[in-house]
Amino acid sequence: MSKIKVVQGGVTAAQGFRAASLFAGIKPGNKNRHDMALVASTVPAVAGGVFTTNQVQAAPVRVSRLHLRSPQVSAVLLNSGNANAATGPSGIAAAKALASGMAAALNCGTSQILVCSTGRIGVPLPREKMEGKLPELADQLSVKGGTAAARAIMTSDTFPKECAVEVAGPGGVFRLGGMAKGAGMIDPNMATMLCLISTDAKISKRVLQNALHHAVEKSFNRITVDGDMSTNDTVFVLANGLAGAASLKVGSPDYALFVEALDQVCLKLCHMIVEDGEGVSKFVTVQVLGGSSRQAARKVAEAIANSTLVKCAWAGNDPNWGRVLDAVGYCGVRIREELIDIYYEGLAAVRGGVPAPTPKDKLVGAVSEKRFTVTVDLHQGKASYTVYTTDLTPAYVEFNLRE
Amino acid sequence: MSKIKVVQGGVTAAQGFRAASLFAGIKPGNKNRHDMALVASTVPAVAGGVFTTNQVQAAPVRVSRLHLRSPQVSAVLLNSGNANAATGPSGIAAAKALASGMAAALNCGTSQILVCSTGRIGVPLPREKMEGKLPELADQLSVKGGTAAARAIMTSDTFPKECAVEVAGPGGVFRLGGMAKGAGMIDPNMATMLCLISTDAKISKRVLQNALHHAVEKSFNRITVDGDMSTNDTVFVLANGLAGAASLKVGSPDYALFVEALDQVCLKLCHMIVEDGEGVSKFVTVQVLGGSSRQAARKVAEAIANSTLVKCAWAGNDPNWGRVLDAVGYCGVRIREELIDIYYEGLAAVRGGVPAPTPKDKLVGAVSEKRFTVTVDLHQGKASYTVYTTDLTPAYVEFNLRE
Repeated sequence: MSKIKVVQGGVTAAQGFRAASLFAGIKPGNKNRHDMALVASTVPAVAGGVFTTNQVQAAPVRVSRLHLRSPQVSAVLLNSGNANAATGPSGIAAAKALASGMAAALNCGTSQILVCSTGRIGVPLPREKMEGKLPELADQLSVKGGTAAARAIMTSDTFPKECAVEVAGPGGVFRLGGMAKGAGMIDPNMATMLCLISTDAKISKRVLQNALHHAVEKSFNRITVDGDMSTNDTVFVLANGLAGAASLKVGSPDYALFVEALDQVCLKLCHMIVEDGEGVSKFVTVQVLGGSSRQAARKVAEAIANSTLVKCAWAGNDPNWGRVLDAVGYCGVRIREELIDIYYEGLAAVRGGVPAPTPKDKLVGAVSEKRFTVTVDLHQGKASYTVYTTDLTPAYVEFNLRE
Repeated sequence: MSKIKVVQGGVTAAQGFRAASLFAGIKPGNKNRHDMALVASTVPAVAGGVFTTNQVQAAPVRVSRLHLRSPQVSAVLLNSGNANAATGPSGIAAAKALASGMAAALNCGTSQILVCSTGRIGVPLPREKMEGKLPELADQLSVKGGTAAARAIMTSDTFPKECAVEVAGPGGVFRLGGMAKGAGMIDPNMATMLCLISTDAKISKRVLQNALHHAVEKSFNRITVDGDMSTNDTVFVLANGLAGAASLKVGSPDYALFVEALDQVCLKLCHMIVEDGEGVSKFVTVQVLGGSSRQAARKVAEAIANSTLVKCAWAGNDPNWGRVLDAVGYCGVRIREELIDIYYEGLAAVRGGVPAPTPKDKLVGAVSEKRFTVTVDLHQGKASYTVYTTDLTPAYVEFNLRE
């Protein structure tokens, strides 16, 4: 029996985590469309965070980066409808004021509050409106609030994204749960990706940060297909130790299980984000084998996953390996055309740089599925890399004609 | 009065150049849809060429690269409907056989024939069919054949692309003319771009190659917005000296005029290619100022011009400067958010990293035009760079759902 099992719930599945959400009027709409959320731990937790690599960084990213230096945090305050990005010094002041107000309502220090925003850029945050709602958010914290919180951070998402697992290790049982909001597109250029994971495992801040870093590298960084990130992209993990299991030490079986469970939660949330991309009709795994280095395999995989023409062909059920081969040729990695193999779902489309004898209807069948894998073998070495992407549909473009 | 004036015609506008085209049955269709073309000089000409940087290179690119080493060439043989790419050693043999057959018909050496192909990838060239037509092509060479030749190399183009200029310099009068076929998209990922320029100026091979290199850098490389090139992209220039004007020496006023005229012809053909892109509704100039280096300014310009979200916004008449700012932030160039200005047609959208007070309807008006300029000033130095691009429309995606 597996030691990691999927359980109901999301960000409040682990012990001691509660959530609340409400409508503060940041988004246009009505009271049923929450736009503020709070996730808090009943006891101080250690936290790790990974932020956008974009040099244009939203105010909440700057403030949270600072607050993450404190040994422990108590809660994460999130809002949708306004990204608090490109808002200058007054944006920073607003993010700090919200953290301070939230800290007062929760009776903790300002630096124990992390903040996340997503939504429109360049519009001042409606700070007073939001500050007035902080006590109410604190009052409403509940174990049952997880799904509503996951819904409150949605922007163009069509469903809330949450998942949770329970881990039974030699040192005891603990849980990890998470919620996320999606990118408008698989490559989250601007549509912000936010993710918050909570766990009742006992782990040091340093080890937690390290585990998060690796999990993000294998999940969120694989859907950010060209390394682009929005101004607000943020992934947080909070660990409060309330499960009562043994403290996780690097190298122990319990730690290995924790890492596996964290990877699983991140990957599950990523897959939900990709599948909920605007106008997306297919989920495509691009696997590159035989690279001379991991970096080379990555460049090839990302060039394929980012090619407009390749993605259009997938939307049209066209196994257009010529466009794939072209992307391999221009991505900047030294390749040898005459060695390249291309497969769709294991069916050879190209062998040694020239067309393979697989009948075209079989290849069309493979790319007509809702999920399929494209494999490129460079035959130059042993390095590999995988990215997750989508097709490009007319509906996507229609959706993005306006903000 | 300007010393460079636009004249009628294209690739046969300069003295001694003749063209022919016919239907060989490479493309499906009928006899009115020519798919082979020949452009020849009545006397041997010096030639320069610039080829795709894609590592996957079509057979005609490999063969022409070799033939370009000869001191002089006599003609360029072109076909549409088949790219002769990803065709292995038999593709190379076919390209060589066609050059050899054409040379026999024109009574010159095989290495005096350059070859270009565009069309489907990975399909063997119908070599016999084509070889049978070579004598007919040679017979039909005519000064009037330019436009039909420009039409014969079209694939998804909707109109033939040609232009010509006459230069009156101190050393005499000479002409340059050219024809091109477009990329399916502004970023010619796969849809091949071919261009052939002819001139009756007298110039050495080395100087001609150098002038072409610079002209391409300022034109064709500016529409290849992310540095991508297809497997077949080729630009050739042939100079036969028949105008009787003085030989062009580097540093002379005549040479300066030649360079200016060559730039003008290349840029004109590029603009036609961009405007004829599949599903394109706008022609956008992206200008980056204040870069710390030319390379930095180029990276920023190309990131903006290649952003799917930015291009979708343009299609929707949305002056979405947030998406532009985001692209600036993720492109990998060290920037200072608080210094950045963004303008649409000279109207300030962002000043110092935050929204400018320009009314939104004015910005909407600017991006609603068929042609507009987006300017980003990084305020970090004096380097600048300009690229030419388009919007991204649902029609583009529809067009590219299948090959």
